[in-house]
Amino acid sequence: MSYPTQVRLIDVGPRDGLQNEKQPVPAAIKIELVQRLQEAGLKEIEVTSFVSPKWVPQMADNAEVMAGIERRADVRYSVLTPNLKGFEAAIATRPDEIVVFGAASEAFSQKNINCSIAESIERFAPVVEAALAAGIAVRGAMSCTVGCPYEGEIAPEQVSYLAGLMKGIGVQRVDVADTIGVGNPLSVRRAIEATLKHYDLEHISGHFHDTYGQALSNTLAAVSVGVWNFQSSVSGLGGCPYAKGATGNVATEDVVFMLHGMGIETGIDLDKLIDAGQFISDSLGRPNGSRVARAVLAKRLG
Amino acid sequence: MSYPTQVRLIDVGPRDGLQNEKQPVPAAIKIELVQRLQEAGLKEIEVTSFVSPKWVPQMADNAEVMAGIERRADVRYSVLTPNLKGFEAAIATRPDEIVVFGAASEAFSQKNINCSIAESIERFAPVVEAALAAGIAVRGAMSCTVGCPYEGEIAPEQVSYLAGLMKGIGVQRVDVADTIGVGNPLSVRRAIEATLKHYDLEHISGHFHDTYGQALSNTLAAVSVGVWNFQSSVSGLGGCPYAKGATGNVATEDVVFMLHGMGIETGIDLDKLIDAGQFISDSLGRPNGSRVARAVLAKRLG
Repeated sequence: MSYPTQVRLIDVGPRDGLQNEKQPVPAAIKIELVQRLQEAGLKEIEVTSFVSPKWVPQMADNAEVMAGIERRADVRYSVLTPNLKGFEAAIATRPDEIVVFGAASEAFSQKNINCSIAESIERFAPVVEAALAAGIAVRGAMSCTVGCPYEGEIAPEQVSYLAGLMKGIGVQRVDVADTIGVGNPLSVRRAIEATLKHYDLEHISGHFHDTYGQALSNTLAAVSVGVWNFQSSVSGLGGCPYAKGATGNVATEDVVFMLHGMGIETGIDLDKLIDAGQFISDSLGRPNGSRVARAVLAKRLG
Repeated sequence: MSYPTQVRLIDVGPRDGLQNEKQPVPAAIKIELVQRLQEAGLKEIEVTSFVSPKWVPQMADNAEVMAGIERRADVRYSVLTPNLKGFEAAIATRPDEIVVFGAASEAFSQKNINCSIAESIERFAPVVEAALAAGIAVRGAMSCTVGCPYEGEIAPEQVSYLAGLMKGIGVQRVDVADTIGVGNPLSVRRAIEATLKHYDLEHISGHFHDTYGQALSNTLAAVSVGVWNFQSSVSGLGGCPYAKGATGNVATEDVVFMLHGMGIETGIDLDKLIDAGQFISDSLGRPNGSRVARAVLAKRLG
């Protein structure tokens, strides 16, 4: 078995993680988190989303956060833009990449964004067109690619269907996401293979939730087939609304520990990353969600 | 890649897990835990150890526990016996298997059992001989096969050396253990390959700690090379003395969830297993250490 020699991690903590906080997090904290992540070596950071503050008050400070971060030329800053209105608000903040958010499950699409998969693509099309015209990269999040809270198991054909639609409207790369964390090495591999019908390995990223503790073995399965882009969240920020008390995004620290152990480069300084995760955990007043961070911090104390 | 079609799990919670509790657990609780584990479908359970109660007061009730459990003909009950004195106490309780505990690290051997690796084997030899003469199976735990808290990384040659010594005194099968949880899919595979010089796949089990959250990806790496016996601990019982606040043994529930998802049979009823884990977590008054259990229990509550 051969693995990629390097992996690129996209930290989605500031957006996908903090969006799930009941109490909105002050913009200054978000800005410092982004700063600490880039100092730790992250080259891609999902910063915020441009959605109605009525629905997602946690991200109402999107423009303030984007204006406040110290931009680096070698770091890609992405933002979620579900529709043209969001995109128009986002463009003033000069994101490097926008993200549209679809689902491989019809039921999830209906419940989450109130339309069918095909309708969601129609809605994204002008956003993608406008972004590309403005020279902004476009990523497509494909949620529920292995399991759905409403439909159960998701067939690879549904993933291929969504990936084809994303490709059709010009989305440049896609995330294969296990939104509820029920995937396993085989189901994740099947979802990736279905996506490979429309995108090459360079343009596919894995996004695995750790709700059932399966994210690292799913990551291993994905690197085993050559995937080398992954999303993760520092200190495991982000709960999963479908499983109370359970964790959501896999912790970036845990992914880095595994990859570095395997000799796969990420360009990330694990110690600085752990400090960034502890900073945000302290700010939120909660235990650090990364097992690696907890073990390393306990060792530091002796 | 091909995987085994079935995997056998050895739950070590009653011994390896409860041995780490500060407050000894009442024998009646241990007996009920064993009962629940076998009702959930476990076919191998590490029940207790026969060591001096001066050193391990948590296992002082070993004979009481062994006498109290309802023995089933198709379940293998194992006990740890570090020396001849322990073995002689154990034999009266009719264990199906005894376990001797060695290390692939000289420093760990010295610190943990106060002698060199070679000396520990000399000490085990008469125990193994007596067990085999009495028709009792013998398993050898090989600790620190990838990393050691004192020596750091452990070379595969050290693992092969220990496995060869174990084989030499008649130990029938061995555990490849990542005692401090620092292994990764490559280092674990190397430790298994080193062991394969002396034992076949049938007689090798994987024993991975989840201190750094790596146990499931290491399990996946091991099944990928054909290992089909694993040790785990219901609800992740068992802390790791070298990393305060961090977890120890991988939770049996988490392993079962992954394997079943991959279509690998274990013969275990996951729901009953989760109930067993919650029973012992409640008894100890602590959060359930299995992510699968936490997610499933949260879902049950709606």
